[in-house]
Amino acid sequence: MNDVQIGVGKKGTRAWAFDDIAIVPSRRTRDPRDVSTAWAIDAYQFELPVISAPMDSVVSPDTAIQIGRLGGLGVLDLEGLWTRYENPEKLLVEIAGLPADKATLRMKEIYSAPIKAELIRDRIAQVRASGVTVAGALSPQRTAEFSETVIKAGVDIFVIRGTTVSAEHVSKSTEPLNLKQFIYELDVPVIVGGASTYQAALHLMRTGAAGVLVGFGGGAASTTRKVLGIHAPMATAVADVAGARRDYMDESGGRYVHVIADGGLGTSGDIIKAISCGADAVMLGSVLARANEAPGHGWHWGQEAHSELPRGNRVEVGQVASLEQILLGPATNADGNTNLMGALRRAMATTGYCDLKEFQRVEVVVAPYNAR
Amino acid sequence: MNDVQIGVGKKGTRAWAFDDIAIVPSRRTRDPRDVSTAWAIDAYQFELPVISAPMDSVVSPDTAIQIGRLGGLGVLDLEGLWTRYENPEKLLVEIAGLPADKATLRMKEIYSAPIKAELIRDRIAQVRASGVTVAGALSPQRTAEFSETVIKAGVDIFVIRGTTVSAEHVSKSTEPLNLKQFIYELDVPVIVGGASTYQAALHLMRTGAAGVLVGFGGGAASTTRKVLGIHAPMATAVADVAGARRDYMDESGGRYVHVIADGGLGTSGDIIKAISCGADAVMLGSVLARANEAPGHGWHWGQEAHSELPRGNRVEVGQVASLEQILLGPATNADGNTNLMGALRRAMATTGYCDLKEFQRVEVVVAPYNAR
Amino acid sequence: MNDVQIGVGKKGTRAWAFDDIAIVPSRRTRDPRDVSTAWAIDAYQFELPVISAPMDSVVSPDTAIQIGRLGGLGVLDLEGLWTRYENPEKLLVEIAGLPADKATLRMKEIYSAPIKAELIRDRIAQVRASGVTVAGALSPQRTAEFSETVIKAGVDIFVIRGTTVSAEHVSKSTEPLNLKQFIYELDVPVIVGGASTYQAALHLMRTGAAGVLVGFGGGAASTTRKVLGIHAPMATAVADVAGARRDYMDESGGRYVHVIADGGLGTSGDIIKAISCGADAVMLGSVLARANEAPGHGWHWGQEAHSELPRGNRVEVGQVASLEQILLGPATNADGNTNLMGALRRAMATTGYCDLKEFQRVEVVVAPYNAR
Amino acid sequence: MNDVQIGVGKKGTRAWAFDDIAIVPSRRTRDPRDVSTAWAIDAYQFELPVISAPMDSVVSPDTAIQIGRLGGLGVLDLEGLWTRYENPEKLLVEIAGLPADKATLRMKEIYSAPIKAELIRDRIAQVRASGVTVAGALSPQRTAEFSETVIKAGVDIFVIRGTTVSAEHVSKSTEPLNLKQFIYELDVPVIVGGASTYQAALHLMRTGAAGVLVGFGGGAASTTRKVLGIHAPMATAVADVAGARRDYMDESGGRYVHVIADGGLGTSGDIIKAISCGADAVMLGSVLARANEAPGHGWHWGQEAHSELPRGNRVEVGQVASLEQILLGPATNADGNTNLMGALRRAMATTGYCDLKEFQRVEVVVAPYNAR
Repeated sequence: MNDVQIGVGKKGTRAWAFDDIAIVPSRRTRDPRDVSTAWAIDAYQFELPVISAPMDSVVSPDTAIQIGRLGGLGVLDLEGLWTRYENPEKLLVEIAGLPADKATLRMKEIYSAPIKAELIRDRIAQVRASGVTVAGALSPQRTAEFSETVIKAGVDIFVIRGTTVSAEHVSKSTEPLNLKQFIYELDVPVIVGGASTYQAALHLMRTGAAGVLVGFGGGAASTTRKVLGIHAPMATAVADVAGARRDYMDESGGRYVHVIADGGLGTSGDIIKAISCGADAVMLGSVLARANEAPGHGWHWGQEAHSELPRGNRVEVGQVASLEQILLGPATNADGNTNLMGALRRAMATTGYCDLKEFQRVEVVVAPYNAR
Repeated sequence: MNDVQIGVGKKGTRAWAFDDIAIVPSRRTRDPRDVSTAWAIDAYQFELPVISAPMDSVVSPDTAIQIGRLGGLGVLDLEGLWTRYENPEKLLVEIAGLPADKATLRMKEIYSAPIKAELIRDRIAQVRASGVTVAGALSPQRTAEFSETVIKAGVDIFVIRGTTVSAEHVSKSTEPLNLKQFIYELDVPVIVGGASTYQAALHLMRTGAAGVLVGFGGGAASTTRKVLGIHAPMATAVADVAGARRDYMDESGGRYVHVIADGGLGTSGDIIKAISCGADAVMLGSVLARANEAPGHGWHWGQEAHSELPRGNRVEVGQVASLEQILLGPATNADGNTNLMGALRRAMATTGYCDLKEFQRVEVVVAPYNAR
Repeated sequence: MNDVQIGVGKKGTRAWAFDDIAIVPSRRTRDPRDVSTAWAIDAYQFELPVISAPMDSVVSPDTAIQIGRLGGLGVLDLEGLWTRYENPEKLLVEIAGLPADKATLRMKEIYSAPIKAELIRDRIAQVRASGVTVAGALSPQRTAEFSETVIKAGVDIFVIRGTTVSAEHVSKSTEPLNLKQFIYELDVPVIVGGASTYQAALHLMRTGAAGVLVGFGGGAASTTRKVLGIHAPMATAVADVAGARRDYMDESGGRYVHVIADGGLGTSGDIIKAISCGADAVMLGSVLARANEAPGHGWHWGQEAHSELPRGNRVEVGQVASLEQILLGPATNADGNTNLMGALRRAMATTGYCDLKEFQRVEVVVAPYNAR
Repeated sequence: MNDVQIGVGKKGTRAWAFDDIAIVPSRRTRDPRDVSTAWAIDAYQFELPVISAPMDSVVSPDTAIQIGRLGGLGVLDLEGLWTRYENPEKLLVEIAGLPADKATLRMKEIYSAPIKAELIRDRIAQVRASGVTVAGALSPQRTAEFSETVIKAGVDIFVIRGTTVSAEHVSKSTEPLNLKQFIYELDVPVIVGGASTYQAALHLMRTGAAGVLVGFGGGAASTTRKVLGIHAPMATAVADVAGARRDYMDESGGRYVHVIADGGLGTSGDIIKAISCGADAVMLGSVLARANEAPGHGWHWGQEAHSELPRGNRVEVGQVASLEQILLGPATNADGNTNLMGALRRAMATTGYCDLKEFQRVEVVVAPYNAR
């Protein structure tokens, strides 16, 4: 691998961000209409490799349904405002309007309301009633407490998502979640993460997860690098986890674990690069928070923004187009914010690939982006 | 080659832009007056290694003639306004004056007018009458439909130019252009591209093309990297295709295919570096769009700006000097925008080379430009 | 090592800054409450791996005591205003209010007052009386003159700190400090530096020092690179000195010399990275100068700012929170300026490490930070 | 060496600028008063390794004398205003006051006045009368025409300086200067350049030159990279030429050719790095143009700014201090603009070196500067 000697006493590995790479056409070209962006996880089929990030600024029950109808998968945050408040709409409006210096503190307050099991049931029921695939997310800390409620409420896909989720969490004071046993006993497929290295992902795959989230989420809104010194450039993280998927497939006698890039995906170009590095699908946050229908009203934030140790800010992302236009076009500008799937389709066609799995082999150059 | 391990599951190649390199004098120096910038493609001789990009903001029939008279080759866009409208001048003025938020939509409208075969004939006839070498460009999509018209109208050189053109385009719904057969049956030399890798270019060379365009065009106005994730740093792209030219020359028993850099050429320094990496000539867009006579009236745009999936913007490039001053000087400033050929001549003299082919061997350093 | 050929006649070594690296979780995760940040030097135990930089803008006798009570070590600058003036408070206020063009000159004046032995005694006595561990710093130039006073006054830990301190200082006109003999004869542990290379640190370790300061201090306020061309990227410097510690431990039959990163530590992320590269503790300047209680009143400067050859500026760092909030939280923003130790604890937990020594083995990636 | 494969068809070499490197202390430290900055070329001794660039904005006869008295070498531009006009002072004032859009054109006019042999004699005589070492510079183009005048007028050191000077200039229309024969027949030592590669410098050394100028001059004011694509990062250029000096010394049986860095030297840090890479002395332009006494009145320009092919601009550098303060201090700020020699002395002392020749061995790190 790319070993770097940082100094006499320390080695590191060179890692690359999406901005550091680009894809290049090097073979036949294709008609974009002949290209398929479909994928499946377990028994669930999707036309688009798009999963919404379970964040209050991105997904409400309504937009979860809409994303499902457009061909993707909407994931509800089961620890967000929708399961703490009967009617969170006025709080979402309030958050969008908070002055910068008051935001962190007030958001802590708002999010200190307790999660209610009956609201989890109601929200899931609402999505279920629409007929789309139902997915809900909990953090590892809350999974033990609420998973039964969630399963009973009838999710199709269970998402366990935290900044960093490991196969083995150790604690002296609380009984940590035994991921392997939990997943084994569960009837629904589990997507779990974030992980960002080969080792961490391999261990998560061994728990029986159906999918692994790569990255720490919240790219646009995160200051994790500044606060914790933690950062995983996404091109390398996705490629490392895709390597783990290949090795685990061999080790497990053929189990294919889906690799889902989660974080640092700001444009259609980033989505395309994520797949080129080995992702099967992408989990989108800020990109979808820009939708007119997004519950964040043009603002975007993650759980890091209101935790004990804030490592993210509420950021204004604006409202650029409808959810449909963002995913399926037509694009009204050339910024890579709209018609994400049209762009993916075009990139696959231009480089000559028919489906997503094949497209993971596309040629890539390393050429750090420099805004001159 | 420069393999880079992006992560466990993905390899890439390090690639360099013109801004990443510079040429260095390391041998004798010469008198600039003893230097020749001449080149030829097929039977056509040119004093300057300059081909205009077939874009409405760069080439009108008038400027095509003028570029020819100055020693270069003007290429008409046969799918632009000049072949859709009898008198496009007022539309060019309108485009230059469009407010930013209306530009993409209105340009789509303007460019939705049908291409007229008789206008193709008339425009070519007008250039032909002037006595300069006549060249016209079509996209691969339009080549089958209009090539006969174009040939009958009497072009000397036929240009097939798209963002990415491959030797083999695959489509289930339309009959794609068979490039190899098309070129074989044609009587005039064909320049075809863009291609940006060794493999892609080698395949284009095997179709019988006389020249290959390297790059995806439209550097200044393009956001292809953001929208599609596609980007080919030009120094590497030109050097790769020059490598393909050498290998194809061996494979074909001596056929020399011209390598023409197309895109990312914003200054005389870039043009000089393109040749230093192996280009025989350069196709210029924004650099010529800055001419007082350019039809874009100080604005520049490509087909990407008004396509279904916009990946370029109309950009204001200004009007800096006459076409003659831009190509042949005298320079009135030190920005590398004017007297492009004087600069090339001086660079060749300073590094001790007599002609363009020799100059492709000039010593190069890698030293990323940093505007401090 | 990372040799780089700068040119035919010169070799160099590739070096990395904290901004060039990041840590990545790759194994189990832990409960932050199970993590220990304790360390010890000689007989002195500390809950936090934090030593205050001996600078007038950072440490007064009062804040030295407060830092000690919070779990760190406050080091008094025994050549600063507190040992030159009976009551320096009004001068500190004056410095904070100086117009930029007058600052350098006026500070030279203020600092030209003589150091008074009795003030050294009084200041140390004041800290001593509080019960916390007492530390004071002199420059190598002043050590011979004042060390006896300092020792008699009763410091627990003696700090010799200069921009660059070597084990062997050579002078024709003055009798230089013989570090080895000095440390040998002293009864208290000595922390000495800055050093920034394996060789320099190894020699300092051989003098018998208990700790070595890595770096040249004064990151935020320093222009040493511009003025002297001297710069030691901190990730490499710390890792090099940590390598020297390991080799010296072998050579000395087990003496463990503490490695203390000093300089370039602007956020909690930087502190975390310093430890990840092998530091046992960090010496903090600008980060603590931001405390409401800091004597600099929101301004920060080092001795370089008022030397004969200024290579640093007085910089405004602002007042962001109380000293306690800066070190122990709660954080009120996501900038990495507050709750430094909470962030360290969280980073250790997220990457699965229990104590600081173990955490020096955490996985690191090289990925230069790019503020896009 | 540092080969880089730019693409299949082209190789390059990695090159480094002064901003990409830094020096690091790694051994004993010294008293700055014990350090010598003296050097000698032929029979001429200098206290400072400083040569002024022969540019109208830097050197007048008066400042040439003053630089000599301060310990450096002032070199008159014998093709500048002082040898074209009896009293150029009012033109210098005019140039400093020209509006940006008129500057290039008006400067061309001013510099079109003929060079007068008698003025060459007078200017040299004036400097000669002061008792300092006398040096004058011509371009290679003018050397044949005026060298006899210059020698008769009594220069001690003859400088032949152009953007790029090679040992073999080829021209079909004019008889080029035979450098080897010219130097052989001359009685005074010749400094010649710019050269920027090992090969080019080696050839210049073989002509019998006493010193070689490394670089293309005019760093601050030059746009050569943009216009000609030519650029030689200075750290690598100096190290390459220092390598040539070593090899030539062996080849010639011990002739030591002085390496003089010329260009890209904007601060004391850059000067220090130049020597660390192997330079024996530095030729300073913009740094001295900032002197209150500099003839440019706070502006700086080179011959490129008024040539047929402008590749430099007149730039405002301001007036920061007296010539004496710039060279010998005291420094009044921390920007590396003043007390250049104090900084050099301090850097040598901090890294433990006694004289310039030894200091060429100082340890260097590669760590690209990033203004964050």
